[in-house]
Amino acid sequence: MNKLNWGMIGGGEGSQIGLAHRIGAGLDGKFQLAAGALDIVPEKSRAYGVQLGIDKERAYGNWKEMLAGELKRSDRVDLVTVATPNETHFEITKAFLENGFDVLCEKPMTMNPEEGKSIVEIAKKQNRICAVNYGYTGYPLVRHMRAAVKRGDLGKIRVVHAEFAGGFFADAADANNPRVRWRFDPKQAGVSAVTGDAGIHALHMACFVTAQEVSSLSADFATCVEGRTLEDDSLIAFRMTEGTVGRLWTSGLAIGRTHGLTIQVFGEKGGFRWQQEHPNQLFWTPLGHATQILERGGAGLSAEADRASRVTVGHAEGMPLAFANIYRDLGEVIQAKREGLKADPLAEEYPTAEDGFRSIAVIFAAVESAKHDSKWVELNFDE
Amino acid sequence: MNKLNWGMIGGGEGSQIGLAHRIGAGLDGKFQLAAGALDIVPEKSRAYGVQLGIDKERAYGNWKEMLAGELKRSDRVDLVTVATPNETHFEITKAFLENGFDVLCEKPMTMNPEEGKSIVEIAKKQNRICAVNYGYTGYPLVRHMRAAVKRGDLGKIRVVHAEFAGGFFADAADANNPRVRWRFDPKQAGVSAVTGDAGIHALHMACFVTAQEVSSLSADFATCVEGRTLEDDSLIAFRMTEGTVGRLWTSGLAIGRTHGLTIQVFGEKGGFRWQQEHPNQLFWTPLGHATQILERGGAGLSAEADRASRVTVGHAEGMPLAFANIYRDLGEVIQAKREGLKADPLAEEYPTAEDGFRSIAVIFAAVESAKHDSKWVELNFDE
Amino acid sequence: MNKLNWGMIGGGEGSQIGLAHRIGAGLDGKFQLAAGALDIVPEKSRAYGVQLGIDKERAYGNWKEMLAGELKRSDRVDLVTVATPNETHFEITKAFLENGFDVLCEKPMTMNPEEGKSIVEIAKKQNRICAVNYGYTGYPLVRHMRAAVKRGDLGKIRVVHAEFAGGFFADAADANNPRVRWRFDPKQAGVSAVTGDAGIHALHMACFVTAQEVSSLSADFATCVEGRTLEDDSLIAFRMTEGTVGRLWTSGLAIGRTHGLTIQVFGEKGGFRWQQEHPNQLFWTPLGHATQILERGGAGLSAEADRASRVTVGHAEGMPLAFANIYRDLGEVIQAKREGLKADPLAEEYPTAEDGFRSIAVIFAAVESAKHDSKWVELNFDE
Amino acid sequence: MNKLNWGMIGGGEGSQIGLAHRIGAGLDGKFQLAAGALDIVPEKSRAYGVQLGIDKERAYGNWKEMLAGELKRSDRVDLVTVATPNETHFEITKAFLENGFDVLCEKPMTMNPEEGKSIVEIAKKQNRICAVNYGYTGYPLVRHMRAAVKRGDLGKIRVVHAEFAGGFFADAADANNPRVRWRFDPKQAGVSAVTGDAGIHALHMACFVTAQEVSSLSADFATCVEGRTLEDDSLIAFRMTEGTVGRLWTSGLAIGRTHGLTIQVFGEKGGFRWQQEHPNQLFWTPLGHATQILERGGAGLSAEADRASRVTVGHAEGMPLAFANIYRDLGEVIQAKREGLKADPLAEEYPTAEDGFRSIAVIFAAVESAKHDSKWVELNFDE
Repeated sequence: MNKLNWGMIGGGEGSQIGLAHRIGAGLDGKFQLAAGALDIVPEKSRAYGVQLGIDKERAYGNWKEMLAGELKRSDRVDLVTVATPNETHFEITKAFLENGFDVLCEKPMTMNPEEGKSIVEIAKKQNRICAVNYGYTGYPLVRHMRAAVKRGDLGKIRVVHAEFAGGFFADAADANNPRVRWRFDPKQAGVSAVTGDAGIHALHMACFVTAQEVSSLSADFATCVEGRTLEDDSLIAFRMTEGTVGRLWTSGLAIGRTHGLTIQVFGEKGGFRWQQEHPNQLFWTPLGHATQILERGGAGLSAEADRASRVTVGHAEGMPLAFANIYRDLGEVIQAKREGLKADPLAEEYPTAEDGFRSIAVIFAAVESAKHDSKWVELNFDE
Repeated sequence: MNKLNWGMIGGGEGSQIGLAHRIGAGLDGKFQLAAGALDIVPEKSRAYGVQLGIDKERAYGNWKEMLAGELKRSDRVDLVTVATPNETHFEITKAFLENGFDVLCEKPMTMNPEEGKSIVEIAKKQNRICAVNYGYTGYPLVRHMRAAVKRGDLGKIRVVHAEFAGGFFADAADANNPRVRWRFDPKQAGVSAVTGDAGIHALHMACFVTAQEVSSLSADFATCVEGRTLEDDSLIAFRMTEGTVGRLWTSGLAIGRTHGLTIQVFGEKGGFRWQQEHPNQLFWTPLGHATQILERGGAGLSAEADRASRVTVGHAEGMPLAFANIYRDLGEVIQAKREGLKADPLAEEYPTAEDGFRSIAVIFAAVESAKHDSKWVELNFDE
Repeated sequence: MNKLNWGMIGGGEGSQIGLAHRIGAGLDGKFQLAAGALDIVPEKSRAYGVQLGIDKERAYGNWKEMLAGELKRSDRVDLVTVATPNETHFEITKAFLENGFDVLCEKPMTMNPEEGKSIVEIAKKQNRICAVNYGYTGYPLVRHMRAAVKRGDLGKIRVVHAEFAGGFFADAADANNPRVRWRFDPKQAGVSAVTGDAGIHALHMACFVTAQEVSSLSADFATCVEGRTLEDDSLIAFRMTEGTVGRLWTSGLAIGRTHGLTIQVFGEKGGFRWQQEHPNQLFWTPLGHATQILERGGAGLSAEADRASRVTVGHAEGMPLAFANIYRDLGEVIQAKREGLKADPLAEEYPTAEDGFRSIAVIFAAVESAKHDSKWVELNFDE
Repeated sequence: MNKLNWGMIGGGEGSQIGLAHRIGAGLDGKFQLAAGALDIVPEKSRAYGVQLGIDKERAYGNWKEMLAGELKRSDRVDLVTVATPNETHFEITKAFLENGFDVLCEKPMTMNPEEGKSIVEIAKKQNRICAVNYGYTGYPLVRHMRAAVKRGDLGKIRVVHAEFAGGFFADAADANNPRVRWRFDPKQAGVSAVTGDAGIHALHMACFVTAQEVSSLSADFATCVEGRTLEDDSLIAFRMTEGTVGRLWTSGLAIGRTHGLTIQVFGEKGGFRWQQEHPNQLFWTPLGHATQILERGGAGLSAEADRASRVTVGHAEGMPLAFANIYRDLGEVIQAKREGLKADPLAEEYPTAEDGFRSIAVIFAAVESAKHDSKWVELNFDE
């Protein structure tokens, strides 16, 4: 097995998301970190790359250097991860796609739907992979929900209820904390704070699990902490393309909820309940029967769940392994492509540029609705 | 201690709510069931009354007989509970109040706000107690939340999130089940099904805990099971009189959630999380600290919680004891009145006609919003 | 329905257990408190009786007065509850049984097995009911476990694991707290502290659920808090009459466990897990399948569970309603006896003098084992 | 950073524990898999090594080849992991230690205490690291418990209660399942089945967390499934070197418990409760206060916990990351040794040959006690 060459942009020293990507990419031994432009400061970027074991000549000072450098190489990176500040995702992703690289971009893929649509088109035209890191979809039991919905265990899906509500922005004293401040600065965060940053995960998961898109919505945005110009709590009612009714609550003020991503799916024949904080259990209730606790790695799960599962039942698998599932799928698909083979269809479950584009379009629609008396706004991704 | 005489209208044989009221009223030995008109069928009404130990002459055939009969007695009932079908609450409650009785009415107190306002005014004019049975407010830890908010433990309340989402109306095969059918028949259920029936409890609890009223709202109603004309799922965004942001999700389709009443309260300095299915634990998180599990009956709770608590910590107290707290408070207030004394202010926490009126006004506003593109509707209870 | 006359000995003002008995006995309207000797101080005893609504002439100063007074009456009490300090249970229970009264005695029924055996024989000879208040067996889901074991859902029972471990005696500063001190004083507490007081409940529940008796045991007693002469933590390995392996851990030092009574039952075909702190849920795992959460009041439970259940599913029923089930059963059996009828066999599930005797015999055997290098001690209840 | 060379013996294709080791060793990029003898069948061993990316010449056919081969190299492996069948651990570990390699051996380190003691002495004499993979001690919150006990948060530790009870050996139909059969075959499993295999983890954790050793014990072993000669359930009472009272329940029959490793620690001033299935939460109750839920990655934990923590709070870290912590510590200590430096003392927390020896000695003592009427057996590790 030859390892695939992996390159990373952003995710420098001390970056949590950078660490999560490195663990995820490295976990199965499919990828080796071969190149990087890891920090906004060129010297730091190069030094940290070397520190991580990248060859000196591929420890670049910035992404443009990296693009130029890699283009010259025959062993150029097989996958580029873009984990830079949000407002730079579009430009970098676009540049790498146009130059023939496969890309995994952090969410949000772009700052607006126009750029999003543009990425979708470029990836298509270039015939490149552009994945978007809605990493929570890598959890085995999230994939199980999707599979069970798809095969009809729940019948028609009536209601999906998603939440991403935690206390991460609850401390008013954080006004000058840089980790918090930029989220509420429209120049850096764009049109939305918690909805575009956290809620977007829950929203995407609602789409992922139901295999539907949002078709219309009504939103209420609220700003509770003084001095903020973007929302720190929002509520969105929506409808989906197959008629499912959606509810999404996002909050950064929910003190006591550690993370807060949860999803509930209710069909004619049963209901699911799952929360990211305890990802190895899925509550499944068939209509008229007692609730069952499905355990990751346990008997009777779908092939989709088992495929994404690594260690024996009863041993928690956490977020780094969910990320690793995204990378493993990408690795399989890229290798198959290299060898001219068809990848296992189950490897094609990773979120794509389409997902990235649609998610940001929904956020924009929500902003519009919230500005106009919560009026219903339609979305049409088929035109 | 002389027991108070208690009369009941509705709550006949096999009625769950009737049983809950009898347990609640009887639990502390403050009330004795002295009169009743328990069933819509006069013979059954009389027979069941006698079976429950009521004197034959006070086991009435219907509420009008009861009103006439009790008026003639010097030992007339001290409190009348109205637990009849919803559409009769107004007429019966009105008649007893106007004739000088104190009343505890099941929710919803009336079918519309006009009737609700009228009850408020009659009770005021007659100087009678008119309580409304939002019985879940009788739980010790719900009272603790209210007390803690009032004394400022949470600082300004930013967001209150309430849910009443269960699977009670999820089975499409229940279309002809009488227990379910009437809830979706506008003639019997009025303008709303799950929101007016279940959601109203969660909504009232949001008001009870924050000591605020709803000032405006935007609602989305959805009907997912074919053949229904009223909503079986709804989402309401609201604002409260002191600026708190509110979220309310109501559903009868949430298979796997046994009951589904939960409330979360988030202030500047901390957050609460409570669910009716496990009413003896309250999750309390002070900003920046670990979540604490407060146990009913445990050390360090408020006087309001301790007063409503009966057995030692670690022993669950359930819904019948919450109901009993409403009755105990009413008993204390009625006895104090009889004796010309002032009742303990903590006994005055039971929900009143004002609460009944405001709740139904909010439901009507939600219906209006849902009919008009989820536009925001204002409520003003001060005019 | 004529109410049965109920008399109570002990359970005076401020007594938690007295309150629990009054709620339990009164809940279904089967019993009225007709006589009492409620306090050790005669004046207090009479005054509190009157305060609770007992006729002055039946508000006795002590139990001997009560026995004499009731014997003279044709409407003498139908059931006497004995809730006095432990060391007086035997004498009082004996006296009332011998004079033809039916008795419900608090646990432990006696201070030693000899007295226990004697009570069994007296009750038999007199043909009177002698029930013992292992009140936790009144929970619907505990009765469900027993019923499910009996009907073979679990196959042969291999292991039963019981615990009663809480932090109730963890505070060394409680050395002079009278609520705690007497538990460790052999004169008042007898041969054992936590095992005889708390563990005995868990032990009885193991017997109740499996319908077996303890046949042999090995015990380890430990005393961790300085100044105590009796154990504050113990571990018992045992075997049961049908071959089940038993484990019992009792502790008063387990800080953070609010109550701590739990039971787990493992058979060839499935396992149960239940805890008193959340009595409305029972975890049931059929071999090879996912764990199910059985809800009190939910579909598919046994007749035994449904019979003991009062309010609709999703509404907690707590400890007072478990006590009420014991009283309701006793009421049914006593009424049937009065009327010369056979009671519903399901009403005969309350714990009896046999249970009281066997439990205390097991405690004595444990003390013996603990004193002798944890050697195995046999019990034989058939001789 | 130069990667350390890592070699693995055992853990061939399809081995769960092999996968867990590879993930754990690889996670931080400290080790690279440089050599291996992965399967008992030489051809498979070599082929699988190559498949995992090992150079052909270091993909050995068996451990003896590997020892000989590596001895000849200047870049010989820095750490050898032994994950072969239990009865071979001693011979292999001994051979590598004697030839100057550092070793991480799977548990149980040896089949009896004599061999265990011998390994301790060899490692000491050779001045080599011999670690034993009690991998669950790598969890951040387990390390926090140890640190909190050490710094006195709980005062004197009174009771430690450990369990490893799951349903893994509950299916009687597994009699011929090779995964199960060998555990009950004394030739392969040694003197004990579930106690030596599973209970030993819980026992070691009790020692790890309290920083004490077992000083005496009384054990009961039971065999419930027909046809087995070793125990499938056991109960052990023990005492520890600083006077702590211990309780250990081990079972393979506990249907419905997915994994079942839990630990509770009770001191004078507070109590801990932790379970392996939800490793990111630790329940901490200070005496007289509400229970707190400590979250991995949250504020206020010990340096020991934070050091072992990787991703942000609210994101589960699972078992592979606990293993990775053992490897990271070993990596740091080995690197420090190479460079003649002192490693961070916090890196020295991994379990050692001493732990492996003492654990197996305790198991042997338990077997002896169980055979002799549960008599108390003393252990003395100081002689």
